[in-house]
Amino acid sequence: MIEAIVINNKQVKIIDQTLLPQEEKYFEIKDYQQMIEAIKKLRIRGAPAIGIAGLVASALACDEFQNYPQDFSKLEKALTEIENARPTAVNLSYAVNIARKYVSSKLFLSETDVLWKKALELAKQEKEASNLMAEHGVEEIFQGQSELRILTHCNTGSLATYGEGTALAVIKALSRIIKVTVWVDETRPLLQGARLTMWELIKEGIECYLISDSMAAHTIKTKQIDLIITGADRITRNGDSANKIGTLVLSILANYYNIPFYIVAPTSTIDYNLEEGSQINIEERDSTELKYIKGVQIAPSSSKVFNPAFDVVDNQLITAIISEKGVHKAPYDFKL
Amino acid sequence: MIEAIVINNKQVKIIDQTLLPQEEKYFEIKDYQQMIEAIKKLRIRGAPAIGIAGLVASALACDEFQNYPQDFSKLEKALTEIENARPTAVNLSYAVNIARKYVSSKLFLSETDVLWKKALELAKQEKEASNLMAEHGVEEIFQGQSELRILTHCNTGSLATYGEGTALAVIKALSRIIKVTVWVDETRPLLQGARLTMWELIKEGIECYLISDSMAAHTIKTKQIDLIITGADRITRNGDSANKIGTLVLSILANYYNIPFYIVAPTSTIDYNLEEGSQINIEERDSTELKYIKGVQIAPSSSKVFNPAFDVVDNQLITAIISEKGVHKAPYDFKL
Repeated sequence: MIEAIVINNKQVKIIDQTLLPQEEKYFEIKDYQQMIEAIKKLRIRGAPAIGIAGLVASALACDEFQNYPQDFSKLEKALTEIENARPTAVNLSYAVNIARKYVSSKLFLSETDVLWKKALELAKQEKEASNLMAEHGVEEIFQGQSELRILTHCNTGSLATYGEGTALAVIKALSRIIKVTVWVDETRPLLQGARLTMWELIKEGIECYLISDSMAAHTIKTKQIDLIITGADRITRNGDSANKIGTLVLSILANYYNIPFYIVAPTSTIDYNLEEGSQINIEERDSTELKYIKGVQIAPSSSKVFNPAFDVVDNQLITAIISEKGVHKAPYDFKL
Repeated sequence: MIEAIVINNKQVKIIDQTLLPQEEKYFEIKDYQQMIEAIKKLRIRGAPAIGIAGLVASALACDEFQNYPQDFSKLEKALTEIENARPTAVNLSYAVNIARKYVSSKLFLSETDVLWKKALELAKQEKEASNLMAEHGVEEIFQGQSELRILTHCNTGSLATYGEGTALAVIKALSRIIKVTVWVDETRPLLQGARLTMWELIKEGIECYLISDSMAAHTIKTKQIDLIITGADRITRNGDSANKIGTLVLSILANYYNIPFYIVAPTSTIDYNLEEGSQINIEERDSTELKYIKGVQIAPSSSKVFNPAFDVVDNQLITAIISEKGVHKAPYDFKL
């Protein structure tokens, strides 16, 4: 299995996902600033994976500042920087808050070991969650069908988490029971579907077809798609779910064509502080992501751009949210 | 105004739309095979424009074969080749059938002049249709609003026809009366929205924002989009409309968000031989269009691809079809 992040005795390396699928290159992360850069540039991405990366970055920051306990404010600033590296996925906050719990005193000289341990624990927790989500997903979806035709968006596999993934873990588990065919949205602008999900599914030997996001409706209509399944980056108490831009389109198409739309995400993705989706801060990214593809210009250079990285699916468009704790259905009321 | 095709005394040049927006390069089309190549490669595109190109190609073929009247079957074969250069837009058939009317006898030595004249007439007809569609579009859409926020797909302007366009002609006409802001779907895989529509709108001084196709739902939801407007490539008698892949998604989103969805197309786009959309032949194009963008690889090279170039919007999702003859509403029953 591919590992998005490898943690070994306080040494960390990540696979640079911006280079995939052409290049499979791991590189070492030496300090927290480098991890922040990697998160911002999406070298590491996926809500659960950036949670782990956030806790690792916190440990690295703690390492860096442990010789200057009088400068606790610098560490606090570093943690805030890590938390804000990307605004939409709640997992960064979730991870940094774990760190904050253990460095809230000024005695952080010894605490760095605890954070490294916590990072490994979080990775283990996400891996177990991944296995449980796959189990619950199969229980919910598999009803004796001989074949399933599935549409998915973005990347929710091993690259997006620690373990087999979220939505893609369910797809992999289903493929071990019955014939599964997957249509993969390329997921513009950053092409996580084309670059990462196709790469993972081909490696897994699962039959898959690449489509552009604009082809989803025609594909559902003409290829007898049975269900749509995606991950999530932040889920509010009422079940509204932020996920990669384009997910909202799919949930509306599922509704129109009367097929199920599933979200698969660990409970670390739930933001218990938010009542509903309209409160989620949607990251807007640089216009170059739309005007250029890997350095090649595809629009007039003077073009103005609207480039939101996520959208929010209304809870009533979601058939079920599958977490490690089970299959949640409306009315959603997530509580700690 | 930009001209997609320039016809002057049996000499023809087209702007190579695959090079836009970086390069504005016209090149001469010397024989019908070259025009077929240009149509297939989308150097010239847009339903009305390829209709004109088809008639020009027929005239060029007639020129080529006029010294060999004994080989009438060769000309017939050439006309069929032109007609089949792209299968979905009806305008190619429409144009080639005009040609067939004038070369049905074997006396085509003199008929080539007639075809050149007919090509110019068709261009003039499309230009007048463009003006009338703009007028009818304004009548239908403008109800005293102080501002309009419009979402569009693909390219339906001067590059897609002769004159100001179809849907884009309506947008241009509206922008002369009130403030208009346009959100432009980039239109994967061939990026006609990003490359061509953004280029045309910026030239026209109309405020516009580029989005990826996956952002349409979030844009409608958060930017108070008033209406969606697109062109069409083939309309059946019951109003079902084939258009660039991704249009079906937009019509379903318009339905969900309860905003109007308009199709703008000249009556040359109506296929009176077809009762309904399921009878339309949908072109599937090469997998390289999804695996590469301008030569840059964006998916594993072994990826399998589904690459339909069009989809079909069900008539009940269309608020109105605006043609040069007026504003058509359900129940549609187009007759010659």
